[in-house]
Amino acid sequence: MILTVTLNTALDITYQVDALTPHTTHRVTDVIERPGGKGVNVARVLAALGHDTVVTGFAGGTTGGVLRDLLAPLPVRDALVPVAGTTRRTVAVADAATGDTTQLNEPGPTVGPDEWSAFLTAYEELVRDADAVALCGSLPPGIHVGAYADLVRRARAASVPVVLDTSGEPLRRGIAARPDLVKPNADELARLTGAREPLRATRDARRRGAHAVVASLGPDGLLAVTPDGTWRAAPPEPVRGNPTGAGDSAVAGLLSGLVEGAAWPDRLARATALSAATVLAPAAGEFDMATYRELLSRITVTEHATAA
Amino acid sequence: MILTVTLNTALDITYQVDALTPHTTHRVTDVIERPGGKGVNVARVLAALGHDTVVTGFAGGTTGGVLRDLLAPLPVRDALVPVAGTTRRTVAVADAATGDTTQLNEPGPTVGPDEWSAFLTAYEELVRDADAVALCGSLPPGIHVGAYADLVRRARAASVPVVLDTSGEPLRRGIAARPDLVKPNADELARLTGAREPLRATRDARRRGAHAVVASLGPDGLLAVTPDGTWRAAPPEPVRGNPTGAGDSAVAGLLSGLVEGAAWPDRLARATALSAATVLAPAAGEFDMATYRELLSRITVTEHATAA
Repeated sequence: MILTVTLNTALDITYQVDALTPHTTHRVTDVIERPGGKGVNVARVLAALGHDTVVTGFAGGTTGGVLRDLLAPLPVRDALVPVAGTTRRTVAVADAATGDTTQLNEPGPTVGPDEWSAFLTAYEELVRDADAVALCGSLPPGIHVGAYADLVRRARAASVPVVLDTSGEPLRRGIAARPDLVKPNADELARLTGAREPLRATRDARRRGAHAVVASLGPDGLLAVTPDGTWRAAPPEPVRGNPTGAGDSAVAGLLSGLVEGAAWPDRLARATALSAATVLAPAAGEFDMATYRELLSRITVTEHATAA
Repeated sequence: MILTVTLNTALDITYQVDALTPHTTHRVTDVIERPGGKGVNVARVLAALGHDTVVTGFAGGTTGGVLRDLLAPLPVRDALVPVAGTTRRTVAVADAATGDTTQLNEPGPTVGPDEWSAFLTAYEELVRDADAVALCGSLPPGIHVGAYADLVRRARAASVPVVLDTSGEPLRRGIAARPDLVKPNADELARLTGAREPLRATRDARRRGAHAVVASLGPDGLLAVTPDGTWRAAPPEPVRGNPTGAGDSAVAGLLSGLVEGAAWPDRLARATALSAATVLAPAAGEFDMATYRELLSRITVTEHATAA
């Protein structure tokens, strides 16, 4: 079983409008609601790949109820922990003409100390049955900035591989707890290390404690610095489309390869193909299985000559 | 009892952001939820003025449930009729710097023929006990464009005064059914009559069937063309602020005066003062009772010399 953790789950709402013009009134022509938060997205992709997947984190209030109702028909197990506050909504306003989106993210409920304790109890129990754990996304208000570092340590104490995908100070603290893998994008990497050059920044991130670092380079694919070597993985041509969820699909690909004991080039090919298949899918955050399968054999994975 | 009808009720959500910039990501710093739709706003003001008030229309789904939960503590009676679809949300994105808002309005649930029949049954029963009826706002999908005309006729058949506050074709059809009062704003009036000059347009609207027309002229106050005369009502100085809900407060003032048998100048003074007190209130759509009382004696109502 693969466990994904989303401490700040969300009900993702997409509004289709003709074109967003500030300080005017818009008729929303279409409303789509999906269960969201990065770990939920990762779980959905893992489930589509046939992995036994469990989702934990927090859900509360009316919006939390809607989120759980939308999770129920999906092939993932809901192990979300109740919270007194109300789960946040995110609103993506999509312009019909250009497809460009404007994102409005609610902050999420404040998590109290008792709720955090209840989560830790649930987490430790779930980790015992897990083949891998993914810790994904931002921290809701009330949770201390070292929370991911704590969760990384607990997974490591149970000898379960742990992947961390977050940003800012929670990433900085989390890396120091020595996760098996972090997956920053170029911006997160630059903020973490101060270095802009991807290979240098990725190596620097790894020196901060992560066993392996896979940096996403947007349309150019992935760069991995691991104990076994350094690789670049790229799609046959740079893909253009809606990047929503592409990073989450990459995490799912890396986890999928990890639990199957695949070699790094195979893991990176899966992650790159899933990420590209997500960018190319017409619906934001979805991926097309046929596109994924077709792309998988066409991903180029090149080993970097110098030592990691 | 005053009955307000809101066929397309809404959960009004306000998001505070630093500044809305299309095609970027925004952290929402504050979320406010209120029960909404024009008739609900009218009822809230009437209740604050001490009137026994009943709200009807449709509510359904999770959002309808939240709407009803938010109505419950207010001093208005909830007589909303269930609908299978989900009540719409409206999202007002307010820029912290300027206070300017960007409005995103969901379309609302499609109302089926059986639901419309159930509403008509409830409406006829409620109208029997009403001193006045207000029909407010847009029609949800599935409801025929002559629906307000039908509701006006049923109120008139029960000898209950009826106020219509809507726009477009539903207003055009509704006026022909001879409501006691319509309250268009300058834009609605121009669309209805083709005339831009307020007095001419207001008289034209009245000739289409309404017994009285009160046109709102924004910060300049109200213009009333009635069987008893023609008046302009204006605040001591034009008010600037957030106009959200100002028209609904004006309708509440007109209804309040109507059921108390007040003369037109008094009705118009109440409506103008309530409207201005709503524009001046810090929270969108609220009105400040002290400001209302202070303004009430300072409203100028001038009778127009020529015949209506």
